[in-house]
Amino acid sequence: MADNQWRTAVAGYIDGEPHVRGYNLLEMTKELTFAEAIFLVLKGELPDAKERKLFEAILVTGVDHGLGMPSVTAARNVISGGNPINAGIAAGILAIGDAHGGAIEQCAKLLYDFTKRYADDIATSAGLIALRARQERSRIPGYGHAVYTTDPRAKTLIDIAKTTGHNGGYIALALAIEAELEKLHGKKICLNVDGAIAALLCELRFDWRVGKGIFIISRTAGLTAHVVEEMAREAPFRRIPPEEITYDGLAKRKITSTKHQKSNNIQI
Amino acid sequence: MADNQWRTAVAGYIDGEPHVRGYNLLEMTKELTFAEAIFLVLKGELPDAKERKLFEAILVTGVDHGLGMPSVTAARNVISGGNPINAGIAAGILAIGDAHGGAIEQCAKLLYDFTKRYADDIATSAGLIALRARQERSRIPGYGHAVYTTDPRAKTLIDIAKTTGHNGGYIALALAIEAELEKLHGKKICLNVDGAIAALLCELRFDWRVGKGIFIISRTAGLTAHVVEEMAREAPFRRIPPEEITYDGLAKRKITSTKHQKSNNIQI
Amino acid sequence: MADNQWRTAVAGYIDGEPHVRGYNLLEMTKELTFAEAIFLVLKGELPDAKERKLFEAILVTGVDHGLGMPSVTAARNVISGGNPINAGIAAGILAIGDAHGGAIEQCAKLLYDFTKRYADDIATSAGLIALRARQERSRIPGYGHAVYTTDPRAKTLIDIAKTTGHNGGYIALALAIEAELEKLHGKKICLNVDGAIAALLCELRFDWRVGKGIFIISRTAGLTAHVVEEMAREAPFRRIPPEEITYDGLAKRKITSTKHQKSNNIQI
Amino acid sequence: MADNQWRTAVAGYIDGEPHVRGYNLLEMTKELTFAEAIFLVLKGELPDAKERKLFEAILVTGVDHGLGMPSVTAARNVISGGNPINAGIAAGILAIGDAHGGAIEQCAKLLYDFTKRYADDIATSAGLIALRARQERSRIPGYGHAVYTTDPRAKTLIDIAKTTGHNGGYIALALAIEAELEKLHGKKICLNVDGAIAALLCELRFDWRVGKGIFIISRTAGLTAHVVEEMAREAPFRRIPPEEITYDGLAKRKITSTKHQKSNNIQI
Repeated sequence: MADNQWRTAVAGYIDGEPHVRGYNLLEMTKELTFAEAIFLVLKGELPDAKERKLFEAILVTGVDHGLGMPSVTAARNVISGGNPINAGIAAGILAIGDAHGGAIEQCAKLLYDFTKRYADDIATSAGLIALRARQERSRIPGYGHAVYTTDPRAKTLIDIAKTTGHNGGYIALALAIEAELEKLHGKKICLNVDGAIAALLCELRFDWRVGKGIFIISRTAGLTAHVVEEMAREAPFRRIPPEEITYDGLAKRKITSTKHQKSNNIQI
Repeated sequence: MADNQWRTAVAGYIDGEPHVRGYNLLEMTKELTFAEAIFLVLKGELPDAKERKLFEAILVTGVDHGLGMPSVTAARNVISGGNPINAGIAAGILAIGDAHGGAIEQCAKLLYDFTKRYADDIATSAGLIALRARQERSRIPGYGHAVYTTDPRAKTLIDIAKTTGHNGGYIALALAIEAELEKLHGKKICLNVDGAIAALLCELRFDWRVGKGIFIISRTAGLTAHVVEEMAREAPFRRIPPEEITYDGLAKRKITSTKHQKSNNIQI
Repeated sequence: MADNQWRTAVAGYIDGEPHVRGYNLLEMTKELTFAEAIFLVLKGELPDAKERKLFEAILVTGVDHGLGMPSVTAARNVISGGNPINAGIAAGILAIGDAHGGAIEQCAKLLYDFTKRYADDIATSAGLIALRARQERSRIPGYGHAVYTTDPRAKTLIDIAKTTGHNGGYIALALAIEAELEKLHGKKICLNVDGAIAALLCELRFDWRVGKGIFIISRTAGLTAHVVEEMAREAPFRRIPPEEITYDGLAKRKITSTKHQKSNNIQI
Repeated sequence: MADNQWRTAVAGYIDGEPHVRGYNLLEMTKELTFAEAIFLVLKGELPDAKERKLFEAILVTGVDHGLGMPSVTAARNVISGGNPINAGIAAGILAIGDAHGGAIEQCAKLLYDFTKRYADDIATSAGLIALRARQERSRIPGYGHAVYTTDPRAKTLIDIAKTTGHNGGYIALALAIEAELEKLHGKKICLNVDGAIAALLCELRFDWRVGKGIFIISRTAGLTAHVVEEMAREAPFRRIPPEEITYDGLAKRKITSTKHQKSNNIQI
């Protein structure tokens, strides 16, 4: 490939018309739901009706659940500085990282790795995963919740996976880990919404590397609503009130210390 | 509202469960398509089946059409510097501005403004809009295309709008402007995909201010695919080849000019 | 210029070595302060010693003043989501907009415009500016402060401008507006730090369009320190405490309304 | 710390006036160069005159060297979409990642790690580092250049370090690695500008984690100039010319496959 060449298998022009993964964009516009188009663009193939139903559910569940998350706070603060809608959405997406939505891909990778290594021996995989986490005193990505002992969003997604016939080995492993954790710790450390999405994406055979991307696509909808609301309802320039701020740095001092030899005392 | 208070009508917890615009997120996950959830979060109400079909089409049409756009170039260059997926997507969204997707909201505003002023007198509105643009030698947002004399994506969207019963006054006005432009200029200056999306969003009674947001949600899918592909297929650090770069600035010169009095000649 | 050509007058290779605005980057590295290099890259020429002193002061004054601003909040929330340092800094810069640092370029434009129109007749300019703002009930960019009646940062900058011989017509106009505002309103509406920077940049003959850029360069230093501190000292995932959040949207309702005809009830 | 509390040691108000790391911002504005203020805000202490001279040089050397880098391409494409200056700068900074400026912190970490382990035994450290890289067939961060056999920017920085008395153990180690690489590979794999900056930052005892941050502060100056130039000189909407684009994805196909059961054939 020459230096100035660009290539892509995502989409391009065939016979002068735009095509995505080989399908004509005009035909897609007539025939597909948005979720089907997203499935196609990310995975290269169209979902069947059951895969589609499951994927719609994954996308809907991540749309929004209100204020509080770093992504919404970042997005609304950017708008509050007097900026256009795309800058606010971009800042929100910048906040979605390893500690915010990142458990999806880490959990999916874990499920793939252990399934590859121990095939159908779910008990062995679950036992090893739970034990290792306990020994390393680390959290398993996709498990645990600050409030819930059962995360209702995880339960809903798995219920839907059962109706679409996707309750295969990855979901079984995800639930076996939850059971193992309860045995080891004597209390429920629930499979949370991130973990359930991870298991479902494995059932749909998505590359674990797109886990965060799918969450971002989903959450962009909610971020857009927040950003538009911030513009419409709030005065510019959010300010953290002074009483919530503590300066705990160095005490007052003067520049005329011996160390700093007034290097800037330039002759003008 | 106290300084430290945050408020939102988008989503929040009711009786301990997440609700979006009053609907339980769990029920939404079971019942809705992703496009319905987006419609809800942005507009505050669920679409009926016909509105939903039209909105799915709008979202599908913007998903992607390959390389070439500033958004994809920006996104892939950010990944090329060795950065995570969300940074690449965010950079792509940052490129979506007044000259890239911005025609949607400008055109929707125009359609709303003139409809408000001249009610059903579409001929008057179309005539005034086309004439004013000619006098000001300005482009009407949503009209004209570098390649197409008829934009097939615009035609497809309007065809769908006819089947869902949304071919109302806004689409009529959009098409009347196209006809008027042809009369005035003696050649077709077609309603393009941005203009068609604008007319459809008006038919769906969306606030014109969310036009760019809807396009961003749609295109985030394609940007995600590009970013994942860049990571998987390309070596890091895209470099514009030197033969495509021209430095046309000041010629070589020395700092020891009389003007700059070597202010930095500090005594160390 | 061919489609694939890029051109720049900022910097490039001359005889195989990097040059900025005609100066060899190696010579610059030996001879210049960072502020001189910034002055050069933005303005195309090196400052003399007095200009340099004034420009250093402008850059130092914007470095940081702690927590509270939307830019710092956005930056730290992005890090809090588990993201790299550059993503945090970028989010902070995204928050610097019309309502956050934007007064610098708006005020500089105002000073240039009126000086062009009324030349040395500062009294007329100041009178018109203050009167128009009063009639339109609008704020003059660069004037007024929530806490200060005299902004000490503005005073310091203007004091330095006097020592470097830059107290020319633009500073005189900026101060005349302040005096005029006091006469009209019967109370001090002080020239603030943004307004003072604007006046100084006019004295240095900077294009008003780089006003925000200079502030961004300056503040990037503080944002970097905040982002590094957030990584080093804070646990991930900042969360707005629930008691500071109000959901004031629609009340609880069920999806099975007559309007939504369960379109997603797909046959799988 | 209560949930809603924010704390910082970077800057804050003491006796009603802004202070950075204990120094009054007004006094700083009068006394410091911009580089001194950056040194202070990042390191917590003021540099002495020699440290300041070296730090100015580090900052100047990263300002800009023209077109070609992913950061500039991303920044200019964002502007090209019709966006404000801060969005362009932010996109440029987003591109600065592990493969673009990231070698600075990786190299600084390496120099610190080996110095800690082998103290003054530079020969042992250099030998081990070069050997390990050869065995792992990996590049050592901060070494090698596509064009140069000696990177003149690295040489200039080290020359300045000698005049300021900073040619200590870290620079010795950095140069010993270069010599060791030449012995092992039979050709020069030069210490490049990233590696030289890393060694200098170690000599200045900066935390290696701020390496990328310092480069970002420096490069923000150049990005600002590029963004302003793009706005002033170029037409909107950069487009990669079609002849430079290859679509190498799936061939044309129709949606009416057996797999996709026209799930979207909704009854409207």
